[in-house]
Amino acid sequence: MRQIKHPTIEQVELTDIMYALSDPTRLEIIMLLAQAGRKLTCGEINLNRPKSSMSHHFKILRSAGLVETLIEGTEHMNSLRLEEVESKYPGVLNAVIKAATKS
Amino acid sequence: MRQIKHPTIEQVELTDIMYALSDPTRLEIIMLLAQAGRKLTCGEINLNRPKSSMSHHFKILRSAGLVETLIEGTEHMNSLRLEEVESKYPGVLNAVIKAATKS
Repeated sequence: MRQIKHPTIEQVELTDIMYALSDPTRLEIIMLLAQAGRKLTCGEINLNRPKSSMSHHFKILRSAGLVETLIEGTEHMNSLRLEEVESKYPGVLNAVIKAATKS
Repeated sequence: MRQIKHPTIEQVELTDIMYALSDPTRLEIIMLLAQAGRKLTCGEINLNRPKSSMSHHFKILRSAGLVETLIEGTEHMNSLRLEEVESKYPGVLNAVIKAATKS
């Protein structure tokens, strides 16, 4: 089955993660995935933004190594690569999620 | 004496901090200031980049609330607003500094 390409955790750069987290919509997606703690379809991540804009944001989140999107049947299932990112950059993503949840 | 304007910590936004930290040169400046643990002149933060480029990076770091630049005599003295940023967003800046130091 066709799948979307993702960087390995070794290819993930801190500056790309920071850039991916510098946009309010992308931060919201990250928070929704963190709160859910499971894979979410694109429909479940409904932020009332145009579909093209959401695709763009997901692309940046994937290329930064923050989100994995798997095609399962007709659905795109998105999950947070929290454990992998935490193992490479301890504390960064967890602290940002906490900070974003407060603000 | 003329001084440079800075945002108050209340005005600081998480997304602006993330954006400021998404550039390798700006991350290096942050690391140098964190390692020094004291005010540094622009001359002490020598990264072999053009002066105009460094000015641009410092402007972004200041507007994100990460760096304070005070004019003391003929010198620009730069310091990290680590405690203030940590009090608003606990763990974020410390984790990024640690992650950047390792990579």
